[in-house]
Amino acid sequence: MKLHTYYRSSASYRVRIALNLKGLAADPSYVHLSKNGGEQFGAAFDSVNPQHLLPVLEDDGLVLPQSLAIIEYLDETRPEAPLLPADPKGRARVRALSQAIAADIHPINNLRVLKYLSEQLGVSADQKNAWYRHWVALGLEALERQLAGHPATGRFCHGDTPTMADCCLVPQLYNARRFECDLSGYPTLLAIDARCAALPAFAGALPDVQPDAD
Amino acid sequence: MKLHTYYRSSASYRVRIALNLKGLAADPSYVHLSKNGGEQFGAAFDSVNPQHLLPVLEDDGLVLPQSLAIIEYLDETRPEAPLLPADPKGRARVRALSQAIAADIHPINNLRVLKYLSEQLGVSADQKNAWYRHWVALGLEALERQLAGHPATGRFCHGDTPTMADCCLVPQLYNARRFECDLSGYPTLLAIDARCAALPAFAGALPDVQPDAD
Repeated sequence: MKLHTYYRSSASYRVRIALNLKGLAADPSYVHLSKNGGEQFGAAFDSVNPQHLLPVLEDDGLVLPQSLAIIEYLDETRPEAPLLPADPKGRARVRALSQAIAADIHPINNLRVLKYLSEQLGVSADQKNAWYRHWVALGLEALERQLAGHPATGRFCHGDTPTMADCCLVPQLYNARRFECDLSGYPTLLAIDARCAALPAFAGALPDVQPDAD
Repeated sequence: MKLHTYYRSSASYRVRIALNLKGLAADPSYVHLSKNGGEQFGAAFDSVNPQHLLPVLEDDGLVLPQSLAIIEYLDETRPEAPLLPADPKGRARVRALSQAIAADIHPINNLRVLKYLSEQLGVSADQKNAWYRHWVALGLEALERQLAGHPATGRFCHGDTPTMADCCLVPQLYNARRFECDLSGYPTLLAIDARCAALPAFAGALPDVQPDAD
């Protein structure tokens, strides 16, 4: 297996956690999102993913973009240490929580969108930070309400072992801290995040400890 | 089953297609996204989904947001007329194509984001339309390349029967036409779209023919 990754890519971070939780290793192929005018736009990576987005997993002839599709594929082909529950309702809940982050928070705030705001629309740094914090707050407030007091929430987002939802939550909170978002209103999210941080699978996936961190 | 829906909601449209393809019916609960200051913000819907986003499926005690999670749940609990392939690699491809639309195109362009651009950042109508078309073009260009000539692409996005990926593609193209995007560069997408349009499951899910269309 090969993983095209970048240490700061939130979606790559999700997959790194998933690989670690499942005890799997993938050969890294590093794609620097800002050096060389953005290596994701170069010919080498363009042929891997015309979306120019990370991560991409290569496995046995399959070239697979999209972090959630990758995590589900890993879970289906390497079922040890499952990242989705066995029951359809549990699976549905974990997918919905994951998508609430991966579709409704992160894409509005990723690098290419922030660049468009600055470069095409000429918004100020303050306006850009306010944009970031607005979508993070909206998303995390809803997530806090979806998790707090729900009978299926346990030590982690769903039950007492980490799932795909935790693989999404932790990188989103990491990013939110980079942008100095106020997280004090999300005690359930912070408690889950702290339990994740204590696990080597999450600690080993942190952006700062990746070989390509600069 | 109950489906909280709005005729123009692209994500609701995906689920309407999926229900039709599977021959399932859900009682509709209409949530008007612009009347009454946006019914998604009202107390009734807030208790259903604190994200204030559509669609939401209610089934047997489960309250499930997120269109892709809903479609996968329907497919797992009502396996007749499957919307995902049986093999893990095929499933991965269909999920990745679906997420390329549902995570990387649509969320950047939905109503709440366009409103923020106008109301908070004061961008002009022209700039807002350029924003919309930029993300659509970027996403559809990549999708065209991912589908054109790929051995797994058939009469539809994956093989010769519609899958979850087609449930995502058709509403995205419908929206792109509303914003007068130039679609001439995407012959593969347009051919698949035309084949879908000929099927009653897709035609019956069109926004304009929904009872809540106004």
